[in-house]
Amino acid sequence: MTAASTTRRFDFASDNVTCASPQIMAALHAANVDCVASYGEDRLSSALQNRVAELFECEVTVLPMTTGTAANALALSALCKPYEAVYCHQSAHVMTDECGAPEFFSAGAKLIGLPGAQGRLQAEDLEAACALARSMGVHHVQPAALTLSQATEWGTVYTPDALKTLTDSAHRLGLRTHLDGARFANALVHLGCRPADISWRAGIDVLSLGATKNGALAAEALVVFDQSVVQELLFRRKRAGHLWSKMRFLSAQLLAYLSDDLWLHNARQANTMATRLSQGLSALPSVRVVQPVEANEVFVEMPTECIERLRATGYHFYDWPAPAGIHGAVIRLVTSFDVCAADVDALILAAHR
Amino acid sequence: MTAASTTRRFDFASDNVTCASPQIMAALHAANVDCVASYGEDRLSSALQNRVAELFECEVTVLPMTTGTAANALALSALCKPYEAVYCHQSAHVMTDECGAPEFFSAGAKLIGLPGAQGRLQAEDLEAACALARSMGVHHVQPAALTLSQATEWGTVYTPDALKTLTDSAHRLGLRTHLDGARFANALVHLGCRPADISWRAGIDVLSLGATKNGALAAEALVVFDQSVVQELLFRRKRAGHLWSKMRFLSAQLLAYLSDDLWLHNARQANTMATRLSQGLSALPSVRVVQPVEANEVFVEMPTECIERLRATGYHFYDWPAPAGIHGAVIRLVTSFDVCAADVDALILAAHR
Amino acid sequence: MTAASTTRRFDFASDNVTCASPQIMAALHAANVDCVASYGEDRLSSALQNRVAELFECEVTVLPMTTGTAANALALSALCKPYEAVYCHQSAHVMTDECGAPEFFSAGAKLIGLPGAQGRLQAEDLEAACALARSMGVHHVQPAALTLSQATEWGTVYTPDALKTLTDSAHRLGLRTHLDGARFANALVHLGCRPADISWRAGIDVLSLGATKNGALAAEALVVFDQSVVQELLFRRKRAGHLWSKMRFLSAQLLAYLSDDLWLHNARQANTMATRLSQGLSALPSVRVVQPVEANEVFVEMPTECIERLRATGYHFYDWPAPAGIHGAVIRLVTSFDVCAADVDALILAAHR
Amino acid sequence: MTAASTTRRFDFASDNVTCASPQIMAALHAANVDCVASYGEDRLSSALQNRVAELFECEVTVLPMTTGTAANALALSALCKPYEAVYCHQSAHVMTDECGAPEFFSAGAKLIGLPGAQGRLQAEDLEAACALARSMGVHHVQPAALTLSQATEWGTVYTPDALKTLTDSAHRLGLRTHLDGARFANALVHLGCRPADISWRAGIDVLSLGATKNGALAAEALVVFDQSVVQELLFRRKRAGHLWSKMRFLSAQLLAYLSDDLWLHNARQANTMATRLSQGLSALPSVRVVQPVEANEVFVEMPTECIERLRATGYHFYDWPAPAGIHGAVIRLVTSFDVCAADVDALILAAHR
Repeated sequence: MTAASTTRRFDFASDNVTCASPQIMAALHAANVDCVASYGEDRLSSALQNRVAELFECEVTVLPMTTGTAANALALSALCKPYEAVYCHQSAHVMTDECGAPEFFSAGAKLIGLPGAQGRLQAEDLEAACALARSMGVHHVQPAALTLSQATEWGTVYTPDALKTLTDSAHRLGLRTHLDGARFANALVHLGCRPADISWRAGIDVLSLGATKNGALAAEALVVFDQSVVQELLFRRKRAGHLWSKMRFLSAQLLAYLSDDLWLHNARQANTMATRLSQGLSALPSVRVVQPVEANEVFVEMPTECIERLRATGYHFYDWPAPAGIHGAVIRLVTSFDVCAADVDALILAAHR
Repeated sequence: MTAASTTRRFDFASDNVTCASPQIMAALHAANVDCVASYGEDRLSSALQNRVAELFECEVTVLPMTTGTAANALALSALCKPYEAVYCHQSAHVMTDECGAPEFFSAGAKLIGLPGAQGRLQAEDLEAACALARSMGVHHVQPAALTLSQATEWGTVYTPDALKTLTDSAHRLGLRTHLDGARFANALVHLGCRPADISWRAGIDVLSLGATKNGALAAEALVVFDQSVVQELLFRRKRAGHLWSKMRFLSAQLLAYLSDDLWLHNARQANTMATRLSQGLSALPSVRVVQPVEANEVFVEMPTECIERLRATGYHFYDWPAPAGIHGAVIRLVTSFDVCAADVDALILAAHR
Repeated sequence: MTAASTTRRFDFASDNVTCASPQIMAALHAANVDCVASYGEDRLSSALQNRVAELFECEVTVLPMTTGTAANALALSALCKPYEAVYCHQSAHVMTDECGAPEFFSAGAKLIGLPGAQGRLQAEDLEAACALARSMGVHHVQPAALTLSQATEWGTVYTPDALKTLTDSAHRLGLRTHLDGARFANALVHLGCRPADISWRAGIDVLSLGATKNGALAAEALVVFDQSVVQELLFRRKRAGHLWSKMRFLSAQLLAYLSDDLWLHNARQANTMATRLSQGLSALPSVRVVQPVEANEVFVEMPTECIERLRATGYHFYDWPAPAGIHGAVIRLVTSFDVCAADVDALILAAHR
Repeated sequence: MTAASTTRRFDFASDNVTCASPQIMAALHAANVDCVASYGEDRLSSALQNRVAELFECEVTVLPMTTGTAANALALSALCKPYEAVYCHQSAHVMTDECGAPEFFSAGAKLIGLPGAQGRLQAEDLEAACALARSMGVHHVQPAALTLSQATEWGTVYTPDALKTLTDSAHRLGLRTHLDGARFANALVHLGCRPADISWRAGIDVLSLGATKNGALAAEALVVFDQSVVQELLFRRKRAGHLWSKMRFLSAQLLAYLSDDLWLHNARQANTMATRLSQGLSALPSVRVVQPVEANEVFVEMPTECIERLRATGYHFYDWPAPAGIHGAVIRLVTSFDVCAADVDALILAAHR
């Protein structure tokens, strides 16, 4: 075979198989001059603090970090004591995909998974779970924090109002709130709102802001709105080995990511391509998109022979547990900032064949 | 003043204030093409495994990571149980500079600091400490691991024989051994030996191999010789948030670092400059170099007015606790791969003034 | 004042509101002579080892302890690593009633709750959960242990065969097995089998053997069949503050408990009274016993006015979450070794009124 | 067989080889009536709170527990975060004899041992250690708590003024304070002061009050003066498996211990016997008591043939590391509430032979 083997075949397994954006590579290069103070006492790290404060329209503390797992687990460790509980969606990344990182960082706090259609939680379920815990006194871990994902694990998005309802409930119950924003930019673009609208203005105390999946090499940031946990986070970050000595190289990535709307530009491309993919596949009679496509993930029920054909053609993607009410095989397709319409159309075409 | 302010003034505070080597930046760029599998299932990560195996002349497993604190603490967590003890020099980085990272990663194992001139441990002290612990049974944490630093915190180096004496003693006592090689390349260049001679052939089970201080942006690697701890390390790395999704960008740094003798070239420059600095300062009658200079650190006893003058000139460096027998003020000066003779001579000149 | 106030009104809230058996008090007194070696190096502690070995017909190591929570959490901490998973029934005591003790002792291992009618697990559910975990590699905590309760939290009992089916499945999957036997004697009496039949012969590696609820002041024991975890348990017990210095006073309780069939005698009385209570209440048209009564707990669906009347009369008991398919209010009534038929009949009478 | 074998030979190895006081056994019996609420909601547990408040002349919360290791480690876990430091004497029980319990309960906080003659700390050493830690910022665990032992591990006692000097210094530095009072009654009797004088009035925030070594079966209590840590301690106690269900049996021991001056009476006997032992042995020319005898421990330098002769006669005691300046063999002899003058004189006689 000739043409086929040289054809670029975009990988839909995850948005973490992608390259870094050229702007971010350029920023790394620009940062590579002179001796500068280590551990974040450098000019780029200061500039990053200012840029995030400006974007989020409030005072914040930014802790750059390498992975989303580290950001999530660190945040939760400062929001709860070891004998307390963190409430999350039962499909949340912290619950199922981080090898117990929250339990490790928090010295054994308990994640309690709650149900919720389309990956979204309901305040009633949170309230019932907290009431049960409180009623059991010292025999049960006590409610301390709520963590939400935006976009969710099912590629859906909370509106600012939906977030506010949940965080109001949490705060009333004495919980603090964390948002796993591995795909925060994708949600932002979908909603067309401002960063503050789905973070502190919606009652979020600490945000894990992702960049790796959307154009960085390896860069996430804790954006801390609740200044009372900052000191604790600084020590816990060092203790967890997540304080870079040459911090400028981490700050530079994030600064470029948040400059000139790069993060929005990249997320918009990913979301647009997900919608295109969803629409293209829906046209097939035997195919059904099983969750609303609001970010850059498409969950598709598909005949197994079609799934096998796509794999045989060379496509990568994950099988996914079917949501309630779906009985066929489901796959997850993830688009990203560097997929283009031709890549998407090629997959649609392969599925039609 | 005019000229002075534009003069480059190299920073001697630490080898972590430096840039990245151009070869490593180039490798990052070269790695930034195509979709590739995440979490280390990429070509560069495989190549890194092969390169390290070749350099160390044995089968190894390499776990790339971001910081030395993470590498050290992860290694120790797999070498001991929470109710066990890790023996180290009382001035070791794991003991004093990692904010309790080993205790965190190991769930509360106890570091027991032992004395030792010039930053080096003695087998007799290790043996006495282990005998005490064993004699106390369940009331005392039990000996599990020995961790050494190469080069040491005092800028000295263990010979292969000295390492072997210590690790033989440790293994006889049932301990496993770890080497903190944040400045491994500097020791290697000083000794003129092969990597294996001061690692597995000298009885080391797990090595933290540093690159950040010697030319990388942020890259360290656990080089695991004792394959029985590999599985545990893989899970612990993920759980600690130290598994990069876009691993290629970490592997690329390390691969470039270990290619074309870059690591040795860089370390040689740092060591040579340290020797030059030491000799230049020793010529001053009131100055005394208080530890043998065998790597890239120079510890100097100096009149306080001289120290103040250097700081006033714009130099950065740390005050350091005086070693036994020294009563004057001591500072630490660190050289690195990108300091040049003119930088060193400028500091010497400033000290002479 | 009338007769009512002087009537003894037995407390059905739990079997931990009871006294200690006179035989156990007598054993404490008998133990209170002479200086004896501390930390278990005494004659009574040796005798206890022998007695348990004899009763269980195999070599065992016995670690006396104060609470069931300590026994369960210690056992699990030796059966799993911090990045591993322990499978249990979703209503298990370790999951809901120990304030995260297993997470604390294990440094953050994850309990994964599985469903199962009448408080009993099914091997298929265990197998499916383990398969999911294995498929996710380093991203998910890995299967390490299975913990079962005998009798269960719903007052039901596993037959030896049912236990064996589960432990066979667990061992095939590479898991080790723990049995929470807070009410082991009640199960034993119900089944009429030998202790070995529902412990090691049924594939259990470590047993938490309860005595406190069945006649002791405060005494539980880990009965360890898998000798490979003994050393670890000894250190972990001390480290958790659960090694009594005057161990004889703990061993004496357990020795008396296991002598002259006291444990069986006490459990038989509790079980018989539960059956009597269940039958008496079932005779009421509006009352329904919602779980099989196989030990000393009776779960009853009852009109709320009846519940309120019982409370007004002075009875203590807990409201309980209704099992699947039951829509009315459910309460739990627990009998114990020192309840008598008159006590039970008085409650039945009060319910009939 | 002769008289020798039937002679009672009191055991001087520790005060934990002793019986329980008859008054405490009687209290257990008296407590063994009726159903009572579990987990401390009983009448005896309330009475204990009142009795301790009365004795200590202030509001307190009392948490009964089984072992001193548990009490110490629990207390420290509520006084520090995992990334913080606890300062103690380098010979403190928490440092050397608890198998890392403080590290376990605190999730890896670091104990930092300080020197000090006769087992007593000096404020200057504490201040210097804290200054070093603060100067290192996130790289070093930060000062959180000071723990002292009263009586000390060398059988000496802090005066109220000496305690106050240390706790003033600690509080000024932002540390909270804990007192390990395993032998609190012995110190109290030596000083002839009131309980408050060497606890909260001397700046202690949480006290581990021992009873086991001085007449109980197994009973210690955390006496909490700083009410801000009470809630945390309640949850941590349960989570650690140290909350007795039949709490009355623990409270009864402590209540009897603190009633009718039993604790003082017992401690006085132990102290008096220690003084008698010390004086009797000092009369021997080759024997030297190497620490002031202020409680119930006597540290003696003795010719090895004399030590061996005592052991051959049937006496038990521990070899002890010699304090600074002593070059001969040192043993520790511990007296207790149930040793009598004849027992002591018999040992003195055996040493003279």
